[in-house]
Amino acid sequence: MPYNELRKDYLLDRWVVIATERARRPTDFSKPKMESAKPALCPLCAGNEHMTPPAVLVYLPSEAGSVRKTEEEGDFRRKNWVLRTIPNLYPAFAPPKDPADADHVMSNLSFGNAIGAHEVIVESPNHSDHPADADLSQLTYVVNAYKDRLNELSQKSYVKYVQIFRNYGLEAGASLSHAHSQIIATPFVPTIVAAELAASKTYYNQHGNCIFCDLIKQESQSPRAILDNAHFAVFAPYASVNPMEFWILPKRHTSNILSLTNEETEGFVQTLKTTLKALKDLVNDPSYNYGIHLSIDKEAENYYHWHVEIYPHLAIWAGFEKSTGVYINTVAPETAAAELKKAAKYR
Amino acid sequence: MPYNELRKDYLLDRWVVIATERARRPTDFSKPKMESAKPALCPLCAGNEHMTPPAVLVYLPSEAGSVRKTEEEGDFRRKNWVLRTIPNLYPAFAPPKDPADADHVMSNLSFGNAIGAHEVIVESPNHSDHPADADLSQLTYVVNAYKDRLNELSQKSYVKYVQIFRNYGLEAGASLSHAHSQIIATPFVPTIVAAELAASKTYYNQHGNCIFCDLIKQESQSPRAILDNAHFAVFAPYASVNPMEFWILPKRHTSNILSLTNEETEGFVQTLKTTLKALKDLVNDPSYNYGIHLSIDKEAENYYHWHVEIYPHLAIWAGFEKSTGVYINTVAPETAAAELKKAAKYR
Repeated sequence: MPYNELRKDYLLDRWVVIATERARRPTDFSKPKMESAKPALCPLCAGNEHMTPPAVLVYLPSEAGSVRKTEEEGDFRRKNWVLRTIPNLYPAFAPPKDPADADHVMSNLSFGNAIGAHEVIVESPNHSDHPADADLSQLTYVVNAYKDRLNELSQKSYVKYVQIFRNYGLEAGASLSHAHSQIIATPFVPTIVAAELAASKTYYNQHGNCIFCDLIKQESQSPRAILDNAHFAVFAPYASVNPMEFWILPKRHTSNILSLTNEETEGFVQTLKTTLKALKDLVNDPSYNYGIHLSIDKEAENYYHWHVEIYPHLAIWAGFEKSTGVYINTVAPETAAAELKKAAKYR
Repeated sequence: MPYNELRKDYLLDRWVVIATERARRPTDFSKPKMESAKPALCPLCAGNEHMTPPAVLVYLPSEAGSVRKTEEEGDFRRKNWVLRTIPNLYPAFAPPKDPADADHVMSNLSFGNAIGAHEVIVESPNHSDHPADADLSQLTYVVNAYKDRLNELSQKSYVKYVQIFRNYGLEAGASLSHAHSQIIATPFVPTIVAAELAASKTYYNQHGNCIFCDLIKQESQSPRAILDNAHFAVFAPYASVNPMEFWILPKRHTSNILSLTNEETEGFVQTLKTTLKALKDLVNDPSYNYGIHLSIDKEAENYYHWHVEIYPHLAIWAGFEKSTGVYINTVAPETAAAELKKAAKYR
């Protein structure tokens, strides 16, 4: 190959240089992870419920072995739980203090109030129940909590988008090491999501298809394919901006996770666990971020397709990336996919 | 303040939440910097010229106390230098291997060859001559090298943009700790720069003024002002996405650094040193990136205005930022400006 390749994202005007001359292999990134040691007193661990604000959602073990949502106000600080969701103590976005405030959100083009919500999903009473290692039943509670909170937050008049995401490891911004996800509801559709919506709408109008449905067909046959099961496809995107980046897409076209069936939920947590475990094994437990891209806009139902983008934290975006919005990736997505595919196979 | 503020960038569709409830003060960020110890054998130090590719530019001390550029091919590896610029050993963008390749660049909308250039400016023979501490005369060589390389690279038919940037500290992506800057020439105008150009052009057409000229007037009178001298203004931008971010803008309207006079160059290096030293003193020598935003497009001369954006590395962009393109900044730009202004005053 005489030159490094420049590649554009499927949807975004986002370019990446696949800098293969450096020819990094996944194992080159193996290094001792910066450990955030388990604190003496973790506010998210079972028994320390008094250290957090009262929960907005609690799952309790039921006699039948499944869970039930708590309905009693007093239960929001109870101790016997399998999952709880709490407001963030320092919310970036907060609910309106006065109902009238909700209507005036974002009327101006250059500033507004950060009205919305910011919550923490405590995924397990056990400190280290991260997705690569947790039981599938525990991960099912997590995805159900994503659905429950999305369902409630997306009905608020002042909420235009709900970002569900997860930070794992100190280097990826997880200031607490207890297994948790976060949800931020915003009063506008954020930049990247808005660009994805616009581009997928254009594609739909031109081709009569969902671009993500077409991508699943195309990339499952490509050297970027990682995993393919009854309900989900996993591949390394053509213009990955992160080394070892991969995306998980549902095969059934739907714009968000609210309509996930039990069987699909099961397939999703299995896919999530398998791929994150493959990443963990391959690169010595790296830090990562993931975000669920979705739409809560009825109009987008035909053309938008929810999915998860997983960004391993293996490189630093430096002066070039921050100044230009162009990225340099030292691992070709095809290499990442081949290695992840192999690592996922033996699970 | 009942809510966190949402703010939009002057030009870009880039939003930030100023999350003042966390009320971080600059000194809260003080922590031991991850040190990249000086290696036993630094390839950029004087005497190790054989460890790098031959230079493309060398400044030599002259009898008159100033410098002269070397003109002899054999001098590109000579030892007695005050500054040298070398090709990056692992270039992200590389010059065309065949002249014909240059014409076919970026003809496709989703991929291309990474044709351009990627160079390292070794700012001093001394390992630790970083801008906060280096002599002004040494920093003047650096800015002159920026000009010399920009002048040469911008004349290539295949170059559409030249990004000059600096990474300082391991956490900001500086894999070598020797004082150095980098230059990357690209065969297209990168995303962020293209968006700035488009927005400043629109503003110019609407108002008949350069938006940056107007910003200098406005922000110099605002609580975001940091420094103001004969030739330069420094302020914390209204929608800073990084804690302690600041921008340096020339008062004379010009779209790039090529026409900088000697007096302006002197003013620039003094401003750069003063502000970077203020940051170093205030926050315990943090890692940072800076990038020079400029245009080499004749058409943009009236509406674009070169400037430097300095991004201290004090926060981690995590799942929310990477998924949405919306940022959370825990230091209000007004607080950052007040502290930097105070710290800069006593220099």
